[in-house]
Amino acid sequence: MQVKTVTIKLDKHCYDIIIGPDLITRVALQIKDSLQKKIFHQTRLAIVTDTNVAPLHLDPLQAELTKNKIHTVPIIVEAGEQSKSFSTLQTVIDQILSARLERGDCVIAFGGGVIGDLAGFAASMIRRGMNFIQMPTTLLAQIDSSVGGKTGINSRYGKNLIGAFYQPQCVIADTSVLDTLPPREFRAGYAEMVKYGLINQPDFFEWLEKNGQEIFSNGAIRIEAIVRSCQFKAAIVARDEYETGERALLNLGHTFGHMLETATAYDSKRLIHGEAVAIGMILAHQFSAQLNLCDPTLTHRIETHLKAVGLPTQLKDIPGRLPNAETLMTFIAQDKKVSQNNLTFILTRGLGQSFIAKNVPPDAVLSFLEQKLSEIR
Amino acid sequence: MQVKTVTIKLDKHCYDIIIGPDLITRVALQIKDSLQKKIFHQTRLAIVTDTNVAPLHLDPLQAELTKNKIHTVPIIVEAGEQSKSFSTLQTVIDQILSARLERGDCVIAFGGGVIGDLAGFAASMIRRGMNFIQMPTTLLAQIDSSVGGKTGINSRYGKNLIGAFYQPQCVIADTSVLDTLPPREFRAGYAEMVKYGLINQPDFFEWLEKNGQEIFSNGAIRIEAIVRSCQFKAAIVARDEYETGERALLNLGHTFGHMLETATAYDSKRLIHGEAVAIGMILAHQFSAQLNLCDPTLTHRIETHLKAVGLPTQLKDIPGRLPNAETLMTFIAQDKKVSQNNLTFILTRGLGQSFIAKNVPPDAVLSFLEQKLSEIR
Repeated sequence: MQVKTVTIKLDKHCYDIIIGPDLITRVALQIKDSLQKKIFHQTRLAIVTDTNVAPLHLDPLQAELTKNKIHTVPIIVEAGEQSKSFSTLQTVIDQILSARLERGDCVIAFGGGVIGDLAGFAASMIRRGMNFIQMPTTLLAQIDSSVGGKTGINSRYGKNLIGAFYQPQCVIADTSVLDTLPPREFRAGYAEMVKYGLINQPDFFEWLEKNGQEIFSNGAIRIEAIVRSCQFKAAIVARDEYETGERALLNLGHTFGHMLETATAYDSKRLIHGEAVAIGMILAHQFSAQLNLCDPTLTHRIETHLKAVGLPTQLKDIPGRLPNAETLMTFIAQDKKVSQNNLTFILTRGLGQSFIAKNVPPDAVLSFLEQKLSEIR
Repeated sequence: MQVKTVTIKLDKHCYDIIIGPDLITRVALQIKDSLQKKIFHQTRLAIVTDTNVAPLHLDPLQAELTKNKIHTVPIIVEAGEQSKSFSTLQTVIDQILSARLERGDCVIAFGGGVIGDLAGFAASMIRRGMNFIQMPTTLLAQIDSSVGGKTGINSRYGKNLIGAFYQPQCVIADTSVLDTLPPREFRAGYAEMVKYGLINQPDFFEWLEKNGQEIFSNGAIRIEAIVRSCQFKAAIVARDEYETGERALLNLGHTFGHMLETATAYDSKRLIHGEAVAIGMILAHQFSAQLNLCDPTLTHRIETHLKAVGLPTQLKDIPGRLPNAETLMTFIAQDKKVSQNNLTFILTRGLGQSFIAKNVPPDAVLSFLEQKLSEIR
């Protein structure tokens, strides 16, 4: 299987996403290439990873780098969303500074979305910006969170409320690593892939309906799906790096999704991000139908596909109790995508016909949520 | 006295520095103008200030804004360098988020360099970037730290090691406010003004030799000096926003200066930033002379002027004991301006002929420091 490259072209910066099997054990040259303009002689790498990834993949990565005379500083944080915190950020920064890494050295985010967001945010602020490479190890991170330069941590007031736009020197996505991913995590990443179809690529959604199951096995179809996803995201990010316009489409399913993550206190036993997005996309389609924007039967087709790969699609799929609709509304109001109390949602007019809806009436959202909650009581 | 404007033209952003007397009590219109493209209806302002500035100037500022129907959220932190910390940063961010300020709202840094760096860094990361206005209240902040977009906090490993480049929507420098500044703080700011002359404007240095004392009084000369300083810094920043080249010239006196600040544990009773820069500039000129780069008598002329306005110029002017030369070298090695153990200094070939010297031999610095320390023993 061939190694593929997707290039992200931004105004002031251009970088590659390298996608292929078994990259970890042959990555040193790629890293040296990506940093070459910035290094003097001996570059040092801080590898930020977590307690899930380190036991599985840190040794082979360090062995490959050491073999190529690259000095590494491993920094291992607790796996899970709770590491996107001020205190973990400070710990990571302190470890990088205490190892005396300099501007021309590099931080590698070696893990899922949490690690990418945390390590990228740390890299953005150490000495006002160090070199940074993403090595995403989850499907979600490979097709979504590692692409596009969003980094950050959570606040007690909401998810990702504190962060920076910070682009990496390159993204290296080893597709073989995904074989060690728990199936639930793989499915969660798959939800974001479906999202790309639903935004404005009905062909890709139909391709996923046919080939989706194949992606769960390590092979050419998996690589093709990741490449197509990255191409799609790269194009949107290139046109709108700082989310002043169409990049907001990537939030399809995310306003409801973040609401559900807050409602379940980011408890991964109850809900993980991609699952929240899966349910959130269904809610966005149902809400669009209720506003007479799209055919009400559309939701069934999407739900059928999400269920076929084992994703949750309804509020009743979330274990435990949910807060009432008024409380859920306060979670939506604190979302980043809110401006001066006008609610913005990504809604749809049909399969792959999503659009940014500003000024969505809060009353309509509230009564929709009340209805959905009443269905599970 | 007229209000003057200096414009900073960057690749993607252009903003004004407004300089003049009694601006605080007529600032609302200016703020509305600066934000106009970004606001919907009612913009809210977080005013980040400190325990020195708040009792003197917060009431008139809030009164002016309230009169103009701008809702304000005052956030008061402890005055002093110790507020450039992770914990104060988190407190400021929490207060802004808990007041539910949104992307289109604005953070105002109302204070000296510490407040500008802290509030600007907070604004850069809340919702990945809020509107931000600098209202510097010290001479140092008006001519230096508020101009150019550097923000950040200190680490236990060194000063300003954690931060972001983040440009404000505008800078509003009320020159009358400087009358309430303690004389020692005023002098410290004056040192940075002298620095601009020493970098590459011998004419400005000579003008300061003639007019320097006048700047300590509120009048047209003060405004002219601030305008000329801001023009100089704006031009350098416009050419090199991210300090990849000539912007490093602004660090004249700063490598030695930061070393002395670390050596005195940022204890403002012993040394404040501008004082450290004054001594640092003299050290940089003496070191240049020792390397046979410039006439050894040049230092005397500069020292005479700095002393005339009451600034410290020598190590013996610092109260208390200093560490030995080896320890001082470790402080230099952790400076941001260090790359792969090559020491970079701003040295000079004559009055206003500074240049960036890379690969300065550490041994030469060490023996120079040993010699300077031996002179005070």
